[in-house]
Amino acid sequence: MANASKQEIIDFLAGEFPQFKYIVEAVGEQSATVRYEITHADLRPGGTVSGPTLFGIADAALYVAVLAELGIIALAVTTNMNINFLRKPSATQDIIAQCNLIKVGRTLVIGDVFLYSEGSDAPVAHAVGTYAIPPKR
Amino acid sequence: MANASKQEIIDFLAGEFPQFKYIVEAVGEQSATVRYEITHADLRPGGTVSGPTLFGIADAALYVAVLAELGIIALAVTTNMNINFLRKPSATQDIIAQCNLIKVGRTLVIGDVFLYSEGSDAPVAHAVGTYAIPPKR
Amino acid sequence: MANASKQEIIDFLAGEFPQFKYIVEAVGEQSATVRYEITHADLRPGGTVSGPTLFGIADAALYVAVLAELGIIALAVTTNMNINFLRKPSATQDIIAQCNLIKVGRTLVIGDVFLYSEGSDAPVAHAVGTYAIPPKR
Amino acid sequence: MANASKQEIIDFLAGEFPQFKYIVEAVGEQSATVRYEITHADLRPGGTVSGPTLFGIADAALYVAVLAELGIIALAVTTNMNINFLRKPSATQDIIAQCNLIKVGRTLVIGDVFLYSEGSDAPVAHAVGTYAIPPKR
Repeated sequence: MANASKQEIIDFLAGEFPQFKYIVEAVGEQSATVRYEITHADLRPGGTVSGPTLFGIADAALYVAVLAELGIIALAVTTNMNINFLRKPSATQDIIAQCNLIKVGRTLVIGDVFLYSEGSDAPVAHAVGTYAIPPKR
Repeated sequence: MANASKQEIIDFLAGEFPQFKYIVEAVGEQSATVRYEITHADLRPGGTVSGPTLFGIADAALYVAVLAELGIIALAVTTNMNINFLRKPSATQDIIAQCNLIKVGRTLVIGDVFLYSEGSDAPVAHAVGTYAIPPKR
Repeated sequence: MANASKQEIIDFLAGEFPQFKYIVEAVGEQSATVRYEITHADLRPGGTVSGPTLFGIADAALYVAVLAELGIIALAVTTNMNINFLRKPSATQDIIAQCNLIKVGRTLVIGDVFLYSEGSDAPVAHAVGTYAIPPKR
Repeated sequence: MANASKQEIIDFLAGEFPQFKYIVEAVGEQSATVRYEITHADLRPGGTVSGPTLFGIADAALYVAVLAELGIIALAVTTNMNINFLRKPSATQDIIAQCNLIKVGRTLVIGDVFLYSEGSDAPVAHAVGTYAIPPKR
């Protein structure tokens, strides 16, 4: 399998997913870090970050880790995601998502993701997700 | 416990969650149906609906079912959601989410949600989620 | 795809999984019902049924539904299971598990399972699980 | 909150849960390690460890971590567990489960668990679970 570098992933996302609104901070050995700048549209009354926003960040971090490990695979799709909401995120800090792959199989890749409000060590959410990898033609 | 009617829920959401973008179609005995009109921003390359969009609809349907069962509780929060993506949704049909509560406890309410592209019987996603209910003052 | 009948499944399990301790009650259209007789070893202090016992019943019901839908596939394996424990099961009633498949794909089959203490309409647990189907040789 | 030591947990389990068949290896800062010796009854055809056995080990590790963090709480109960089966476990090695708590709330404690066949660095399963803590009297 050919890995993809951080720059290759950024270029791919810019070309194929122009609506991808997450910043690729780092990719590593079966891992990735993604940053997201909270906007007004992401907030809920009381000044917390919405669940779908956090879900989207977790999903993006897992996708970047999949690309980094398997190379550029446009058609990988999420099949399952389990997310626990742990603490109220800051309304003013970026969200940082740290993904580690825990299984890289031929057809399924599984990773876990911790999400943090930048500057805090206590995660605001934790997710475990599965990507299905399309068979090679 | 005081239930809330469909109209009470609509009024509450309009007043307190003006950004709530889901249509309350029906509420019933420990159940709710919610509709969402897909916008361009919800689509992914290939003409599918994004995972975070589907997650948000599932979460909204569960929240409406919680309100219908327990009455107007602004502070109920999602603590866990497990979602399986089953089939490619239509890019042109509304998404319909049907939620049934499977446990109504004092502190936790659990429900499952089937999501459909309108007009199809085969679900595009299925979610199970937990809401935490704040203690009464 | 060739379906398997209730009797074919019972014969297969007796031959290949002699330790399979669940009773196949019924198989239907993408569905299965399984019964389990609680033993002393399944109980926890306070007279409740253990979590691993309930997990095993849910897993068995899903496996029987997979066999009924896809035919006899010895090598299907569980890849994911999400289980919510809802109510205290009876220590003296059989557990009945009702599984419905919600996706039958080429490589993944997903089903949900409601578990009941016999004679009660309120589920004691709910599970959603995924089986991976080995590719055809 | 009063923590419990490894010896206090072992004594409590021996007195109150005599059927608890897991070995408490270590407890630490919001963490616990549990060992389980595979028996013939835990094996499936093909020489793999059954899903319910792995589920039970994950649940036990989470319970020990809860006791270590919150002190001896007999009545804590699992409300949710999401488990991914990653690799075929060894039929001849003990299973080692490493749990870390990711949220310790007043009413809910959430932890993740990695399970290994002893001597291997690649996890055979990964679980995330929630324990509900009964309110103080």
